[in-house]
Amino acid sequence: MAVYTEVSDDDLAAFIASYGLGTLVSYKGIAEGVENTNYLLQTSKGPYFLTLYEKRTSPADLPFFLGLMEHLAKAGLNCPTPVHDIDGQMLRTLAGRPAAIVTFLEGVWIRRPQVRHCQAVGEALAKLHLAGRGFDLTRANALGPTGWRPLYRNFADRAREISSELPDLIERELSALEAAWPAGLQQGIIHADLFPDNVFFLGERLSGLIDFYFACNDALAYDVAITLNAWCFESDYSFNVTKAQALLKGYQSVRPLSAAERHALPILARGAALRFLLTRAYDWLHTASDALVSRKDPMEYVRRLKFHCAVQSPADYGLEAAR
Amino acid sequence: MAVYTEVSDDDLAAFIASYGLGTLVSYKGIAEGVENTNYLLQTSKGPYFLTLYEKRTSPADLPFFLGLMEHLAKAGLNCPTPVHDIDGQMLRTLAGRPAAIVTFLEGVWIRRPQVRHCQAVGEALAKLHLAGRGFDLTRANALGPTGWRPLYRNFADRAREISSELPDLIERELSALEAAWPAGLQQGIIHADLFPDNVFFLGERLSGLIDFYFACNDALAYDVAITLNAWCFESDYSFNVTKAQALLKGYQSVRPLSAAERHALPILARGAALRFLLTRAYDWLHTASDALVSRKDPMEYVRRLKFHCAVQSPADYGLEAAR
Repeated sequence: MAVYTEVSDDDLAAFIASYGLGTLVSYKGIAEGVENTNYLLQTSKGPYFLTLYEKRTSPADLPFFLGLMEHLAKAGLNCPTPVHDIDGQMLRTLAGRPAAIVTFLEGVWIRRPQVRHCQAVGEALAKLHLAGRGFDLTRANALGPTGWRPLYRNFADRAREISSELPDLIERELSALEAAWPAGLQQGIIHADLFPDNVFFLGERLSGLIDFYFACNDALAYDVAITLNAWCFESDYSFNVTKAQALLKGYQSVRPLSAAERHALPILARGAALRFLLTRAYDWLHTASDALVSRKDPMEYVRRLKFHCAVQSPADYGLEAAR
Repeated sequence: MAVYTEVSDDDLAAFIASYGLGTLVSYKGIAEGVENTNYLLQTSKGPYFLTLYEKRTSPADLPFFLGLMEHLAKAGLNCPTPVHDIDGQMLRTLAGRPAAIVTFLEGVWIRRPQVRHCQAVGEALAKLHLAGRGFDLTRANALGPTGWRPLYRNFADRAREISSELPDLIERELSALEAAWPAGLQQGIIHADLFPDNVFFLGERLSGLIDFYFACNDALAYDVAITLNAWCFESDYSFNVTKAQALLKGYQSVRPLSAAERHALPILARGAALRFLLTRAYDWLHTASDALVSRKDPMEYVRRLKFHCAVQSPADYGLEAAR
């Protein structure tokens, strides 16, 4: 929630010119996004989004992210697509940072999702999974199961500062999930961060998906599990099975889950909750409490994790029994 | 540089509807502005700016600020003008805050002003001073000479934390300026904060002025002195007399300064430097060093203040001798 890199009007005007986007009419730093610097540009050819990639985004991953957005857009998914400069490049340098311009996606994100939104996001997630086929770059999931223990080691000695139960809970979950993590599920491109602020609606219509900077190759059903965590808990942390049912119905209307995927859903959802618990706990301990960037409470994911641990079968997520 | 108040999509859609601005297409929190929360809206009728007024803006002043923008725009000045809702109101409430929608002003602010920009801003400032005539609300300048000593008292005991010379310097300047402050100069509406980020250009053309939230009634020449401080020092704090000359030439091409105003310019410029030194020092001591809102270095104004103290005559600002 900040502009990390200031760009001068002269530099920006020259940058825009090299894209053939006409003249610069206005640009405003956007307060959303904690990872990178984002500007909303108005040029004589319309609105665009400019992103300057900051430290937390690895430059080596940028061809994957930008190429993926272009691939998905060409495959018919509504998402921002990178603009090529007059030399054909998507990735350039501005103010000493890697930088790219992407098309502007209309829509607003839904602060209080309803059941109908969950169905639409399920459908869109499945479309993304299909659209990702044939993309020829790959990126390992750094925040998948093999990444969790190293991430935890970075703050294990301070986890108690968040909650006294946290060290035991995390150790137990790491062991349980490492032992039980399913292999052999269908792999593909996953979004890996499809929270409500990454899904735009225009009125009742889902207008598109944004923010592919956690996208990677992993089990498609794991992405479903992440999205269940992101959309189907109420603000009191209770699980709303009607929303989950709608999300899964929307998903399966485009891409039916296999029996193995259905069976794996509880453990995948538990893993997804742990993944967000770990990154939020890390950020919580490494962000000053009075910084203006808002810290997200890791304990929200302890609540989710406990729900998933108590689940008896995929039916608890509103999935009908595997046929 | 932050969004202080989050607004939900539902609340915003209802808010927009009461203005007859069509449907909401997009809204983004803007990172600029440290006082209030700003959103750039796209509606089916075009782009608009939404401001939610936070603690530091007194609700009692809002009719003055909004009425002034409307008055200035009607008088032909290029500036945002408040949009009236379908009941004719300019000031409403959103997310528990006073809120207003203003028109979107095209243009970008110049990060490295050149002489030609200074001439244009001088001209625009004089036009603002003429356009302000006939506006029937008034607002005292809380940050004028009578406000400086009370402001200093709030942090006098900590001023030494910024620089050991600061307490003596400020005490001496307060006494000198209180004794020498000119009376009887022409009064009117002043912008009082016309820094480069409040002046927009489209290419070489000045496209308008923004941010009237320090505007008040005071000596017009004091506004010229503030603007000289804001535009005519280089990044090494040296005074650029060519820029000052251009600014004053631009100003006088629209509204010639009186002999009394020319004569007063050095003391007014010194006062203006003290005013920004005081508010910056206050903010410096009251903002956490690791907050993401950027603190502005008060010592920059010590350098400016010392320049003004050494000035011998109005000619040092590039003013020809009074005729």
